[in-house]
Order: sequence, then C-alpha cells, then structure tokens
Amino acid sequence: MAKTILTQAEFDNRIVKAQKAMAKTGLDALMVFSTESEPAGVRYFSDYWPSFETAVVLIPRKGKAALLIGPESLTYATSRSKIDQVIQLMDFRESSQPDYPGSTLPKWNDIIAKFKIKKLGIVGFHMFPYTIMMGIADAIGGMKNIVNADEVLRPVYMQKSELELDCLRKAAKISEYGFKAILEKIKPGMTEAALCGIATEAMLAHGAEATGYPVWCCSGPNSNQAISRPSLRKVKTGEIIHFSIGAKVEGYSASIGRPVVLGHCPAETKKFLQVGLDAHNLTFDLMRAGVLASSVAMKVHQYIKDQGYGDAILYGPAHGCGQMECEYPFLETSSNYTLEENMTFMADMFLHRGNMGFRWEDGLIVKNGPAERLSKFGCKINIIK
Amino acid sequence: MAKTILTQAEFDNRIVKAQKAMAKTGLDALMVFSTESEPAGVRYFSDYWPSFETAVVLIPRKGKAALLIGPESLTYATSRSKIDQVIQLMDFRESSQPDYPGSTLPKWNDIIAKFKIKKLGIVGFHMFPYTIMMGIADAIGGMKNIVNADEVLRPVYMQKSELELDCLRKAAKISEYGFKAILEKIKPGMTEAALCGIATEAMLAHGAEATGYPVWCCSGPNSNQAISRPSLRKVKTGEIIHFSIGAKVEGYSASIGRPVVLGHCPAETKKFLQVGLDAHNLTFDLMRAGVLASSVAMKVHQYIKDQGYGDAILYGPAHGCGQMECEYPFLETSSNYTLEENMTFMADMFLHRGNMGFRWEDGLIVKNGPAERLSKFGCKINIIK
Repeated sequence: MAKTILTQAEFDNRIVKAQKAMAKTGLDALMVFSTESEPAGVRYFSDYWPSFETAVVLIPRKGKAALLIGPESLTYATSRSKIDQVIQLMDFRESSQPDYPGSTLPKWNDIIAKFKIKKLGIVGFHMFPYTIMMGIADAIGGMKNIVNADEVLRPVYMQKSELELDCLRKAAKISEYGFKAILEKIKPGMTEAALCGIATEAMLAHGAEATGYPVWCCSGPNSNQAISRPSLRKVKTGEIIHFSIGAKVEGYSASIGRPVVLGHCPAETKKFLQVGLDAHNLTFDLMRAGVLASSVAMKVHQYIKDQGYGDAILYGPAHGCGQMECEYPFLETSSNYTLEENMTFMADMFLHRGNMGFRWEDGLIVKNGPAERLSKFGCKINIIK
Repeated sequence: MAKTILTQAEFDNRIVKAQKAMAKTGLDALMVFSTESEPAGVRYFSDYWPSFETAVVLIPRKGKAALLIGPESLTYATSRSKIDQVIQLMDFRESSQPDYPGSTLPKWNDIIAKFKIKKLGIVGFHMFPYTIMMGIADAIGGMKNIVNADEVLRPVYMQKSELELDCLRKAAKISEYGFKAILEKIKPGMTEAALCGIATEAMLAHGAEATGYPVWCCSGPNSNQAISRPSLRKVKTGEIIHFSIGAKVEGYSASIGRPVVLGHCPAETKKFLQVGLDAHNLTFDLMRAGVLASSVAMKVHQYIKDQGYGDAILYGPAHGCGQMECEYPFLETSSNYTLEENMTFMADMFLHRGNMGFRWEDGLIVKNGPAERLSKFGCKINIIK
C-alpha cells in the first residue's frame, strides 16, 4: 500500500480521546453511526468508509472498541479497519434488505451484554435510523437508557491533530489540480457533468482517494444554486460557470470554489464577482484565534451590504471542515464561540442575485495571527478567452 | 437543457400509481425518504436528488404531492423537481446542524394539518431517522399512526415503464465507455483510484449525469472484496484487477463488472475466471418470465459447485436494479417470487477464494423468452499484454 499520513497510533489515540470525553458523562459506551454519504464518524475512529451498507463504531468507557458492520462488507472492512474487533450485524445491511438465507449474525441483546452497556450515547443522533434505535432500545431497557451524545465528541473532532491538518493540506493541494484541469480543458459546449468528470479524473490521478463530496459545476441559470449537482446543460460564453471541486485524502475533504467566465464577461458580472472575492479575502484576514466567530460573520456581511449586495447573502461566510467537507461548527452571525488555534474551516462565500450566483471557497487553519490558507490557485477572476 | 428520456407525464403517472397502491391501504399519505447516497425514492417521484441535505416526497391519498426539502436546497430543488409544491423544513438540514438564524420554516404540526394526515406510511422505513420520526409522531398522535409502507410501493417500483427501461439501457451503454477507457489506458503502476477516475471521466463525457454508485477497482489482495472502494494501491501484472463501473442516467444506475489481468495470467486464475464467466452467462440463460427466482439461484450455484468452486460463492447470482444499482428484490436461493416480464436485474457473479476474487456483472430485462442483456462489451477474459 501507499505510505499514509495517518498512523495506527493516531487512530488508537482517537479512541483514548473519546474515552476521556466519555468519562465526564454517565455513559457506558458510545455508538458512532455513519452511512456512505455521511462517513465521518466511523471513518474517524476506524478508517472504514461504508459503501451500500451502514456502520457503527462502538466505544466502551474502558477497553477495546469494535467496528459493527453489515453482512456483506467483512473482507472490505477488515482490510481497512484500524479497529481489530469487527462484528457483523444484520441491521447494517443495504436498504434493499437482502435475505441472507442461513445467516446467524448476533443480535443487539448479544452486543449490549458483551459490552455490558446500561447507558448508551449515540453520535450522529439525527441520522440514526428509527428501526435500529428501536432494536437497541429493546435490548437496553428502553429509550430512557439512550441519549444524544453528539456534543460529547464535538470537542474531540474540532481539535485537529498535526496529522489531520496534513491530510487537509494535501486534500486542498490535490483539489487545485482538479481546477487546473478545468482551466486547461474547458470549452463552450461541454456539459457541466463532463467538466466534473475532468476535475475528478485529475484529482484521482494526483493522489485523491475519492472526491470529498459529489463535485459540481453550475452554469448560467443554474449558477444561483448554493448546493447542487452537475446537469447535462452545455456551458456558454458570457455566463457564470462556477465549480465546487474537492478531493478526499485519508478521509479528509477539502474544497475549492471558483467561478469562471468564457469569452466576454459583462461589467456587472465582473463587479459582482469582485465583491464576492474581496469579501472572501476579508474572511481570511478576520479569522484568527481569540476572535468571536459571530464578529467575523457580521463584519464580512457588513462589507457585502456596504457594496450594495446585502440581498445576495445566503449564509456563512465559513463552516467547519474535516472529514466532512462541511462539518460542525458553522460560522454565522449567531455563532457565539471563540476561534481557537488549529480549528479548520472552509471560507465559503456564496452570493446570488436573481438567476446569477457563484461561490469562492478555500480551506483555512486558524492561527494566532493570520490564518494558514490551504489553497489559492486560480483564486482570481478567471475570464477565459 | 439536454433532451431527456423521462417526461413530466411519466412523473405525474408515478404519483397516480402510488395513490392507486395507497388506496388499498388505510393510509392518508405516504412519505418517501431519501438521502444523498440513497436517493431512489425521492428521485423516482420528483426527479430531485438531495445533496448534503435529506428530503421526503409526501404523497396524499388524493390531490397534489409535495417535495419536502432542507433549508439550503430551494433553488437547486425547484430547478429539478417535477413536483411543483416544494416546502422547506429544518429537519432535512445537513448533519452538521447549522443554525439558520431567523429561520421561520413550518413545523410538522403544520404539515400534518395542511395535508390532513391521520394515518401515515413511511417508505424507506429502515433508513428513516429516529429524531424526524419522533417529530412526526408528536404531531400525528403517536407512533400508532405511523406504519412501515415499504411494501406498498415495491410493486410500483418493480414494474418498470418503457422510459425507465430506456434509461437503464442508456446507463448500461455509457458504463461500457467507462470500461473501454480502462482497457485503453490501464498500465501496471497506476493506482486503483486513478483508474476509477479514468472510468468516471469517460462516462461523464459520454452523457452520464454521475456515476451510479461510488465505482471501484480492487486489485491483487483487495480483489476478494465484494463491496469496496478504490485504494491508492498500484496495480500489478499477473494479479486479478476487477472493476465495478456504473453510469447514472436520469436517476437510473447501471453497472458492469469486469476482471482484468495485466501481462501473464496464471492457469489457475484463468480457470477460476472462466467458471465465473460461464456461471454469469448461465444466469442470463435461466432468467425468463414465469420462472421461480430461487430456481435460477439454485441452478447457478449448483453449476459453480459442480466445477469445484462451491466455497467461493458469496450471494446472488442477481439483484434488482433501477434507481439504485442494487435494489429490491435480491435473487437468492430463498427467493420465492416468480420472474415477470420487464423486471430489471443485475446479473452479479461475485466469487472469491482466499485472497482472490472477481465480479462479472451486467444488467438484464426479463422477457418471455431470452432476457434482454443490457451490456456485453469486454465480457470475456481480458488479459492485457
């Protein structure tokens, strides 16, 4: 296998950190839930990323953790998992609910007894499926013995280790290759989807394990979409075509957001793009350790309002990043926490007015002083003749 | 926009079919739930595919359906949705639980009252999040008024329309371009991930809107993984390198599975591959309308056992396909349903022994007579010198 950034010791230490966080609670165990599109929790502790099936990392207050997986992923999971103990349960099977004739997998009663759990905390609480929750509740004496433990692990996830920062740095650099390929190959008449394919191929050729999220391109009337997917629309000259391109490296997802205009760029469009770019750069200037998060949002939003584009603000101007390209905490005008060194964010400046919109986005690491900016390639008004 | 296969009438008719299926039950409404990685239900009725956020299609027994989405997807969802009525709810927000200061979105009480729901059926029941279920239960008078309605829509999903078959046919043809690009470009020393990038770029250049699932390549010691993801391992000569490559067309996901060997292929490997290929072709011969599904599985498994590879069988040899590359029903030795014309399957022959495994996979449409095979390109033992 290729040399990795993350070590077995890093994964072992994460279990220790979770157990320390758990010690302050009355919980006997945490169950951290993940799906194919929400892999962060299980990946963080085990390095395993479910596909088709779902999974849980079970962390007891003391002793060894276990990775609980579906019936079909054993060879895949054991080849990836940094947790030795891998247990298959029917509840983590595919949504198509295959039969598995003859299967004799353990039940929740067996798991609860084996790990001696009286009080259980669920992480990923708002994604946790109802039927699995009911199965566990039956085995543990009711919902009174299960609590939402998202808050228990948030401080653990938010304190990034040096190795985690290296993963994010690498993911950001590889994302730049995705946008570089776009700048080299984009032509009027190509579809949004084909352009996303070009960026994806370039990132995977340069060491990404996957995209960090389903990358997208939004052009013309689609450009006002903050969250989207590429369509088969053909890109044209004179319109905004914006890209959200992100690589995943050892579970860590970066993103770069860039608008592009082919041919002639109308003056009004150029002015709008420039206000967004200036606001984006202002976000980097303001984000420093010790600063109240809401004050950054208020100052950046005020700047945009002062330029006459207050109506174009949707959110932000930043959100946490790590294993998910977008993870807790958001940075909004209501964010009453203080920025700390080595917290990681995506500065994410999305503006839209009518049928026109765009995103400028780059990662950053909070420092005592100017933030470390994770990408800068092509972060200018790109008009391609 | 590019010309599409699916029409507004097709989507309208799906709501009518769901309402007909509902009429036989005591339900006032169905809620069909989807996520980014499980988009099938919501996509089927609305053409909308959530990203980051989740979504529900609400189908009342009579009258117009509604698409319920998260707070951040309004412009994206309205640009795609074939259902006019789009309603934002906080419960479908991202897992990172952003604040959205000042938001005044409706609550479940408002939805239940607006649609006059006393008895509700949930589709995608086993994925449905616990907290959203509790919110609805509070508004509707308890869980006694909510039932698992997966079975209500299964017959609707399983009866594919001509337009749906055309989407699958096109997805299968585009998947072939993915494998064609692999055959042209694969070289020892390329990573599994880079090869997946090449296949993805080719499919998106040829009209796929996305991959049908996270495509993968498994090489050497990874080849025994039935479900997997590409790693950064470099492929080598003399080992099995197998590909699962699938395109998505208007929501429909195809797949082709092919093993490849670079340089010299040991005789034992070749024999193993050939048994799998022969069993795969036998599946196509056996799958005809009127045949009991389990009898196909038994005959194919018996064939493999007769060749001395009974220990290498994991499942199958087929599973339903449509919007999900793998959807209900599975075709197993326990499958006591009868094959019907225009049911769609993936013949999926995965065999593994020790550290060696591979998959042959192609789609098919059940007919009164030989099945229509959706792909055949490169379905031979590919030894690339």
